[in-house]
Amino acid sequence: MSEFKTLDREEPNYFGAGPALLPTSVLQEAAYDLINYEQQGLGIGEISHRSKPAIKVIDETKANLAKVLNIPDTHEVFFMQGGGTSGFSSIVYNLIANYAKRHPGKVGKAAYAVTGSWSKKSAEEAVRLGFDVDIVVNTKANKFDDIPPYSEWKAIDKENTAYLYVCDNETVNGNEFKDIPTSEYLPEGVELVADMSSNILSKKVDVSKYGVIMAGAQKNIGLAGLTIYIVKKSLIEQPTDDELKSYGIPRVPIAFHFPSVVANNSAYNTIPIFTCHILKLVTARLIEKGGIEYIQKVNEEKAQLLYAALTKYPNFYKLPIVNPKVRSNMNVVFTLPKDLEDKFIQEATAKNLTGLKGHRSVGGMRASIYNAVTLESVQLLVAFVTEFAEANQ
Amino acid sequence: MSEFKTLDREEPNYFGAGPALLPTSVLQEAAYDLINYEQQGLGIGEISHRSKPAIKVIDETKANLAKVLNIPDTHEVFFMQGGGTSGFSSIVYNLIANYAKRHPGKVGKAAYAVTGSWSKKSAEEAVRLGFDVDIVVNTKANKFDDIPPYSEWKAIDKENTAYLYVCDNETVNGNEFKDIPTSEYLPEGVELVADMSSNILSKKVDVSKYGVIMAGAQKNIGLAGLTIYIVKKSLIEQPTDDELKSYGIPRVPIAFHFPSVVANNSAYNTIPIFTCHILKLVTARLIEKGGIEYIQKVNEEKAQLLYAALTKYPNFYKLPIVNPKVRSNMNVVFTLPKDLEDKFIQEATAKNLTGLKGHRSVGGMRASIYNAVTLESVQLLVAFVTEFAEANQ
Repeated sequence: MSEFKTLDREEPNYFGAGPALLPTSVLQEAAYDLINYEQQGLGIGEISHRSKPAIKVIDETKANLAKVLNIPDTHEVFFMQGGGTSGFSSIVYNLIANYAKRHPGKVGKAAYAVTGSWSKKSAEEAVRLGFDVDIVVNTKANKFDDIPPYSEWKAIDKENTAYLYVCDNETVNGNEFKDIPTSEYLPEGVELVADMSSNILSKKVDVSKYGVIMAGAQKNIGLAGLTIYIVKKSLIEQPTDDELKSYGIPRVPIAFHFPSVVANNSAYNTIPIFTCHILKLVTARLIEKGGIEYIQKVNEEKAQLLYAALTKYPNFYKLPIVNPKVRSNMNVVFTLPKDLEDKFIQEATAKNLTGLKGHRSVGGMRASIYNAVTLESVQLLVAFVTEFAEANQ
Repeated sequence: MSEFKTLDREEPNYFGAGPALLPTSVLQEAAYDLINYEQQGLGIGEISHRSKPAIKVIDETKANLAKVLNIPDTHEVFFMQGGGTSGFSSIVYNLIANYAKRHPGKVGKAAYAVTGSWSKKSAEEAVRLGFDVDIVVNTKANKFDDIPPYSEWKAIDKENTAYLYVCDNETVNGNEFKDIPTSEYLPEGVELVADMSSNILSKKVDVSKYGVIMAGAQKNIGLAGLTIYIVKKSLIEQPTDDELKSYGIPRVPIAFHFPSVVANNSAYNTIPIFTCHILKLVTARLIEKGGIEYIQKVNEEKAQLLYAALTKYPNFYKLPIVNPKVRSNMNVVFTLPKDLEDKFIQEATAKNLTGLKGHRSVGGMRASIYNAVTLESVQLLVAFVTEFAEANQ
């Protein structure tokens, strides 16, 4: 270890899509806690996940999330490993099992809205695992360039459908739901399930409307390795393993079995407690700064500034999401003339504006402006995209 | 953040079973890297899992493991989330699917040796998921007090069995395999699978003899959240999903699908790169110190010292593992008169000897003396158990 190292850094202007930027002050506090937590002589990652300090970390993180998102008592908050990808699997296993509990023995199906790469993967996983899936909307043919109004979606088979799954923000493609389906589209008894991996805690959400909110922590609020679940309590109970077998419903691997995880306060198996601690610090800092109203305002301002700068040069910058209303406030996806891409990246990098390359599957550029990306960073980026367009258009 | 905090700590004498102690120097280096990795201006946890620095961390960790364990080219090393508990599920799914590839369409069964709490859980999970399981030995009736010789185990159904599963070190009960089944017991073609979550990198292992070695990192070598897999390459290939369906073999959730994880160099989904980085630092430090020969010698000396101190007072300290040959070198489980337990813990704590309580399911005491626990710590513990017995026997 070099003695010249310090825990300081210049504030980054980093727009990577995930794992993504975290507040420097949180990382600094976590760095100390990694070695000596609460002056106990041990790091937070070295203690039993069933010890008092670990349980306190879990409980405080849950309480912070409940406070920030105003989570009602009807919902449980818990954590599992495995990221969003494991969430794709765990959601379908658990909710179809739960449906067979609430409608004894009945094997339900699942409705998926395919509005980008991630919802597509999630629907594919549900099919792959052998479940019955209805695709109610699929915009792939149009490169996921819009989220059509609910009135244009295929009707949900209300007698047999356990849930409707949406990806609230599509990180790769750059679209985001700005409202949720009303009762005109979503029948009573069909639960709304949302993957919010890339926009959780970025905006106000009426949790009571959701059956499940699932979010990998590593984009907006934490390190990779922890996934947040906010689940309506009525959706947790399941038939016994024997009953499931008799219904022909496959069992979920035990580490992803909602009832076991909830009964063990997220420590059925060893929770990555350091990663949970980071989430605790991030949520505590958000509360201190003014909570969800504060951050939503900042996020909207950031997005508006950047979209305004890009749309000022419609012949130079193109926005693949054609409908301005569903453009993501988190992942601003844009293109510019192909032969100028390298130059754009080089000049941005020279100004310490980094992480701007688009996802390998779609190319172009992407500025991810998550909670930890400051208004100042976005202002610097706005100045750069303006200057670059003026010089090269 | 208090400005009075430092990255120093007094060397702990901590004997917790997991998550467990890590070398202070590793945690210090990781603390800096959490904020500013390689002077890039960003922490190691904030960068894309597909970026060059992240891939380098993954590749170096794999290379370190290959070096320390002398892993032959016949085997792949990869990482997944979910700990040992997810390993229980992933192993049976993947290996039964692979068996149906190598024996087209055939649904194999799995043999389990139940020698403690963890192998019991693993066997139960394989049954729960609907697989065909043979228990070839089960010492539960004797409270897992021994590992009987292979000659006493039930013969393996060699025509139909994909693998024999053992838990190499039982953390809760304190027994450890000191040899592996020879060809007299284990038929050719039946693969040996070992859970080494609590003793990986503690001793020399002939990897070529194993089909799969699986180990959660959080006991001997890292933080919770990362699981190491060392898998014979011939065991990775699988039938297609459609073929599996036609054979009646359930599909593994995609994040735990060995072929996908291997094809994506452990980044099919987002690998917890900070946790992987810690594993890289721990293994690099082990190589620097002298590798597996060095640490095995230290571990054996630590265990011998402690067992000798305990067995010197056979009327005071009892060792639940009756056969000295299979006593664990990692988890030294012992009891003392029940009415003295609190006093023991109090006096130990006063001497800064902590983490000594036994697992809640078995009670008594347990000193986990993993790689990061120094000989000096064990010597202090030896002095204390001696003194305590002399004063209270």
